[in-house]
Amino acid sequence: MKEEKVFKDPVHKYIYVQDATIWDLINTREFQRLRRIRQLGTSFLTFHGAEHSRFSHSLGVYEITRKIISQFERNHYDDWPKEERLLCLCAALLHDLGHGPFSHSIEKAFGTRHEDWSCRIVLGDTEVNRVLSAVSPDFPKKVAGVICKSYDKEIVVSLVSSQLDADRMDYLLRDAYFTGVNYGTFDLERILRVIRPYKGHIVVKESGMHAVEDYLMSRYQMYWQVYFHPVTRSAEIGLHKVFARAKHLYEEGYTFGFMVEPILHLIQQNISLSDYLLLDESVMQTMLIFWSQEKDGILRDLCRRFLDRKLYKYSTFEPSDQALIQRMEQVMAEAGFDPMYYMEIDFPSKQSYDVYRPGEPDENFPILLLDHKERLTEISHLSEIVQSISGIQMGKHRVYYPEELLERLSVEKYPELWALLGERD
Amino acid sequence: MKEEKVFKDPVHKYIYVQDATIWDLINTREFQRLRRIRQLGTSFLTFHGAEHSRFSHSLGVYEITRKIISQFERNHYDDWPKEERLLCLCAALLHDLGHGPFSHSIEKAFGTRHEDWSCRIVLGDTEVNRVLSAVSPDFPKKVAGVICKSYDKEIVVSLVSSQLDADRMDYLLRDAYFTGVNYGTFDLERILRVIRPYKGHIVVKESGMHAVEDYLMSRYQMYWQVYFHPVTRSAEIGLHKVFARAKHLYEEGYTFGFMVEPILHLIQQNISLSDYLLLDESVMQTMLIFWSQEKDGILRDLCRRFLDRKLYKYSTFEPSDQALIQRMEQVMAEAGFDPMYYMEIDFPSKQSYDVYRPGEPDENFPILLLDHKERLTEISHLSEIVQSISGIQMGKHRVYYPEELLERLSVEKYPELWALLGERD
Amino acid sequence: MKEEKVFKDPVHKYIYVQDATIWDLINTREFQRLRRIRQLGTSFLTFHGAEHSRFSHSLGVYEITRKIISQFERNHYDDWPKEERLLCLCAALLHDLGHGPFSHSIEKAFGTRHEDWSCRIVLGDTEVNRVLSAVSPDFPKKVAGVICKSYDKEIVVSLVSSQLDADRMDYLLRDAYFTGVNYGTFDLERILRVIRPYKGHIVVKESGMHAVEDYLMSRYQMYWQVYFHPVTRSAEIGLHKVFARAKHLYEEGYTFGFMVEPILHLIQQNISLSDYLLLDESVMQTMLIFWSQEKDGILRDLCRRFLDRKLYKYSTFEPSDQALIQRMEQVMAEAGFDPMYYMEIDFPSKQSYDVYRPGEPDENFPILLLDHKERLTEISHLSEIVQSISGIQMGKHRVYYPEELLERLSVEKYPELWALLGERD
Amino acid sequence: MKEEKVFKDPVHKYIYVQDATIWDLINTREFQRLRRIRQLGTSFLTFHGAEHSRFSHSLGVYEITRKIISQFERNHYDDWPKEERLLCLCAALLHDLGHGPFSHSIEKAFGTRHEDWSCRIVLGDTEVNRVLSAVSPDFPKKVAGVICKSYDKEIVVSLVSSQLDADRMDYLLRDAYFTGVNYGTFDLERILRVIRPYKGHIVVKESGMHAVEDYLMSRYQMYWQVYFHPVTRSAEIGLHKVFARAKHLYEEGYTFGFMVEPILHLIQQNISLSDYLLLDESVMQTMLIFWSQEKDGILRDLCRRFLDRKLYKYSTFEPSDQALIQRMEQVMAEAGFDPMYYMEIDFPSKQSYDVYRPGEPDENFPILLLDHKERLTEISHLSEIVQSISGIQMGKHRVYYPEELLERLSVEKYPELWALLGERD
Repeated sequence: MKEEKVFKDPVHKYIYVQDATIWDLINTREFQRLRRIRQLGTSFLTFHGAEHSRFSHSLGVYEITRKIISQFERNHYDDWPKEERLLCLCAALLHDLGHGPFSHSIEKAFGTRHEDWSCRIVLGDTEVNRVLSAVSPDFPKKVAGVICKSYDKEIVVSLVSSQLDADRMDYLLRDAYFTGVNYGTFDLERILRVIRPYKGHIVVKESGMHAVEDYLMSRYQMYWQVYFHPVTRSAEIGLHKVFARAKHLYEEGYTFGFMVEPILHLIQQNISLSDYLLLDESVMQTMLIFWSQEKDGILRDLCRRFLDRKLYKYSTFEPSDQALIQRMEQVMAEAGFDPMYYMEIDFPSKQSYDVYRPGEPDENFPILLLDHKERLTEISHLSEIVQSISGIQMGKHRVYYPEELLERLSVEKYPELWALLGERD
Repeated sequence: MKEEKVFKDPVHKYIYVQDATIWDLINTREFQRLRRIRQLGTSFLTFHGAEHSRFSHSLGVYEITRKIISQFERNHYDDWPKEERLLCLCAALLHDLGHGPFSHSIEKAFGTRHEDWSCRIVLGDTEVNRVLSAVSPDFPKKVAGVICKSYDKEIVVSLVSSQLDADRMDYLLRDAYFTGVNYGTFDLERILRVIRPYKGHIVVKESGMHAVEDYLMSRYQMYWQVYFHPVTRSAEIGLHKVFARAKHLYEEGYTFGFMVEPILHLIQQNISLSDYLLLDESVMQTMLIFWSQEKDGILRDLCRRFLDRKLYKYSTFEPSDQALIQRMEQVMAEAGFDPMYYMEIDFPSKQSYDVYRPGEPDENFPILLLDHKERLTEISHLSEIVQSISGIQMGKHRVYYPEELLERLSVEKYPELWALLGERD
Repeated sequence: MKEEKVFKDPVHKYIYVQDATIWDLINTREFQRLRRIRQLGTSFLTFHGAEHSRFSHSLGVYEITRKIISQFERNHYDDWPKEERLLCLCAALLHDLGHGPFSHSIEKAFGTRHEDWSCRIVLGDTEVNRVLSAVSPDFPKKVAGVICKSYDKEIVVSLVSSQLDADRMDYLLRDAYFTGVNYGTFDLERILRVIRPYKGHIVVKESGMHAVEDYLMSRYQMYWQVYFHPVTRSAEIGLHKVFARAKHLYEEGYTFGFMVEPILHLIQQNISLSDYLLLDESVMQTMLIFWSQEKDGILRDLCRRFLDRKLYKYSTFEPSDQALIQRMEQVMAEAGFDPMYYMEIDFPSKQSYDVYRPGEPDENFPILLLDHKERLTEISHLSEIVQSISGIQMGKHRVYYPEELLERLSVEKYPELWALLGERD
Repeated sequence: MKEEKVFKDPVHKYIYVQDATIWDLINTREFQRLRRIRQLGTSFLTFHGAEHSRFSHSLGVYEITRKIISQFERNHYDDWPKEERLLCLCAALLHDLGHGPFSHSIEKAFGTRHEDWSCRIVLGDTEVNRVLSAVSPDFPKKVAGVICKSYDKEIVVSLVSSQLDADRMDYLLRDAYFTGVNYGTFDLERILRVIRPYKGHIVVKESGMHAVEDYLMSRYQMYWQVYFHPVTRSAEIGLHKVFARAKHLYEEGYTFGFMVEPILHLIQQNISLSDYLLLDESVMQTMLIFWSQEKDGILRDLCRRFLDRKLYKYSTFEPSDQALIQRMEQVMAEAGFDPMYYMEIDFPSKQSYDVYRPGEPDENFPILLLDHKERLTEISHLSEIVQSISGIQMGKHRVYYPEELLERLSVEKYPELWALLGERD
């Protein structure tokens, strides 16, 4: 490129584009589509500032990756494979390309996986693919490999996906900025200064341990305060119920007053790539708007609740209250609420975000500290703080249900149930 | 209310709700709809962070108004009409209620006015109206009066709409925060400390003049850097062209492959209140998505350009170049672009935002400084900075057109046109 | 007071003074003296921004206390003793009044205690005493009681001194701001919202547990990154050595080329209140400047090192290296460095700052969480994070010594010592 | 240097040192002395946060210069003389080296000039000189040349001293940060992006005009709100009076109870370089402390006022009130105040800071905009805002005097004087 281009960004101040390939990728229609998908799904119903898109997050991940690589190059580290620069940058930029609207709810309802879609977009007949192919014929495949973690150089994959990757670093800072909570802030510049390539890994200088502790604590706080927030979860459940109902109606042969092809194909579970690319949150919300005028009372009601933010309330319960919860289902049906759509039970382990658990099988790339004798040690062996976070089991048992249920529930008849539901957290 | 409630807000840290009426208004479906309308219309295509909604801005205007009133009450100012507190708060919260999707483009294409819609929602058969009526039967009318500036107490109206009102103060801070530019920051706390009620006006203590200068300079910078940004303007033009084409097609009897009732009624210019409330940016974007598959080539092309951010380029010209611009129309038609849809000329005065012009007839409430001898003076008489801003004519003459035009334009044949368009700013 | 006064403050934006007593206290010469004593002692030699004074910190502690009380009053909490407001504010403002220059080094060298001096100033013949006496004759005694924790209402004392007090909250935020590290930031507004008076204690609503965790983590990070920083410790040791040498010289009958009375009396350990009030960091630094021209070579050298920031280096060692360290003393003497002045050993427990240890005898006021059943639980029983922090033993064994020592140490002769000292952290 | 070193800085986050020469300069005793001289002189008595030193500012100027040069190098601008890099960095770091304690007051009282002292330190027998000489024998001379603006390459000089130099950029940001006002913030990164070397000048791309306007407005606001603050001015006057009295006493043969050599030589106006280097604000304050116990009543009183912040009050007057002011002198003498020490008149033009005045003879390097046709235009020709700032005459006529004067002034006898002084701004 003749001249560096910049994007003004509230989190990183500026995002610097120095490669024509990156510039062209940003200008593809598939990447522009990410402007119409929120980064935090239903969180905007809990934190009204959380209206930012995956577009801005993707630029941020790219920028952090660019900064890391530029630091590696400035310091002439021998263990850094210089030739992988553009591959890293492209994978960083495109790693979320396959996200659909309200991903978590959609994925659960229809069994799609955004990582698969990212690769399909990179490899399919798309503008993105054409830009990547211009670099070299096998370049799209390499990018897909990094995104799906099958690429054979750990150091490249781990810049984008590991316990201390550009993805997590950007989303913690960005989500903290837009929600307005200040738990997610950590010293990015310091972390960038203490990481380095070492024998095929990205490692952290031991003297940077406290900076990494701080980053992990931010993550811990963000999970509790933002990502696992029960109101956000309630909204996700609401959406999931809408799709479950629509699917059920479709299977029963119901004729929808309003339907568009991409959604129909999604329900039929045979959605094509070009249909998938038409799906964004505006289409999804438009469905909700017009489905809130459907004949089917349940569908209509579920859509209205989401749009008007009349979300389900929730109560925590102990595992020992299991019987009571089963009882609740019966009572609910009696009160005129189909428990299939008007009740949901949440177990801690069902959450889709992770915390730091170095021992887990899917945690291929834990955080390694490099000491002055060139020994590598996994951080939780040296940091008591990290160890304490690793052990904590996230989440509570919660039951979600419509607020009106309580009104219809007689205290005399169901005292224990009343006691349980009356006790909100 | 039993207990104060709060919203986490990135700009004001927290927004405090102390009245049940305010809480209930926020929970109405009409107010929740504002979550689906962006505060800055098409600006997100220029500044990717500008994805925040009118919902968050409305809460912010409410919060600043609450702070101002709370300061007035704490200082026991005699000139403050205590009984107007709730009225001010409601009007502040609801002043943007009638905004439709991409307001500026829509209003221009279909002749609607958001202020009128705000009043129709406040006075019509809505949840908002029911909440307000519970205060007193004539309360909705009073709220509408403040919003439409017909209420008879200047002091109440000017808190919400004047040269130094809660609306402007919130949007400068908020838009600066979300775009990431730092021009819009000024010392809100200091301004709150120097304003006070005085003989029916909101005035500023003379010693606060520099704080107000700083606020007006922020405004000046935000207008140039953000609100008047030509890329944003280009996107607005793009949208306006889409609607103009759709209207033309409708009038010609064209059958749309995709259409929903509220949009149809908007085009027919007989949209009802309940239809209007269904309109939000998700519906509008969904139209663009499916219209990008229409038979009509122009409609299809215009929609695609907006969705994929292939916006028109622009060149500045001097008023003396007028003839050249007329020439351009001809050339454009020859090159296969209908100038009606593929060209737009922008004059400085056509902008929909204002700068500070104390002498103008619509500027009922200029900024008055109160000195220690209790004299009131309009600020531009005392501040040279403000005077210099007041005199500046905003904007440039610009012509917008598709980038491909240049490729089809022969330098030999049209040297002057080439010179004009080649010179971008 | 006729009108509220404000101070511009970088941490709290503004500090609001609403009582004439507070205004008058700030204007006393004893309080103004705090402008000439740095908040963080020798830390400015590690973090060059840490040049802020106890004056600004004291205003900050006052302001946080004011905010807490104002929240208590706004919520009409029954358990808040309204009549104690002014007492709390005065004690908050004055709690650090007795600090001398470079307190930690001075206190260690001469056995003074700043808490005692605070009370002597409050009770002695001072401007502060006259302002307090004007409130009521026994008011100075009450203020001194709160500062020395002997006042009989826990709730009053604990606002100023407890695990979650205005003092700690201000210094974490302020020290983070001025050093530029961002570890010390936590959500002050949220903490203020979740604390309340309850049966004679200040307690935290259980739902605020994560906010308190975040505050404690900030504290943990600040201790490691700032307060316990070994370079700061090295500078403290340097100062302490200067005073030790001066005291030794005085006892030997040495005639100082430069001496002022307050320092002389300090060395003689019979310093009067009026002398003490003349002592500030400018006097102390002036001593160092002119002592750096003394006949005594050791005194001269020690002063120069501090002024020119030629601080002692440090190496960590294991408790098992004890014998080696003793060996080092001998070697040092042979190399011409008197170990009394040129060497210092640091054990973790000697630090003067504390971490959160709920079980310790001096921790009268641990952090209590109040749940919705009105049960009080100490936080480390509910939070694993807090528990993990509580257990961590701070600090390392370190030896401090002049950098030149290494040059004079033969590797062949002292291989183990070389290995130890060569290994810096 | 083997490895880049960093300083944590609150304004720039980190300051990067990449050259051994810079590292060595920072560690000289002459540079370390700057830690003991406040950046803003007496401003800390107005803004309690303004306690930062010239040490941190000097590092900041260095860092901005480093960033500018690094941008020039990254873009391979032909007009940038690469070989001048280290010279620029050293001059940037050392440009304030000659500042004495409370420079403005001292310079006025004793006729010294800090620029001259900077050069004397660079060229004299100092650690700084030894470090610079190690680069090349004529290097100290070149550095002194840049500092004193006699070096023959404008581009080098103007990086350090011009209307848009690293010095001003750092102090605006830094002083805003430490005082806590937010007027001084501007978009440093953007300014760095729009400046470039061009035919021997540092110029600004025309598209960056608004960023420069914003910077100049920040400067304008900082001058009014911070640098010209009348309370700061009052403190400066207080100090100046102390020195004037001491000089007078010395000339009369008075024997001081407390005196140190460097101050004596300063009064005698034959201070040597080594004496000058002993002078810092701690010595100056120590003088004030012990002079506040002198026999001479006026000296004692003046010192006390400064230390205890009992500063002179001030009133504004019109040029036409001149006669009244002369009258005031008489009255003052009658009231027992020697007008030589207890009164000061301030004219706008006497201030030592400048505003942007492109036409003035000493403004060698105004701000030039470079348009796309490679024309250079001075900014005030294109920007109305800048033009309006340039024309504004700063300051007011003010008279400063002890607050007690008013008490001793009979309203009946001196009604006009009462009216004048009673009217504070």
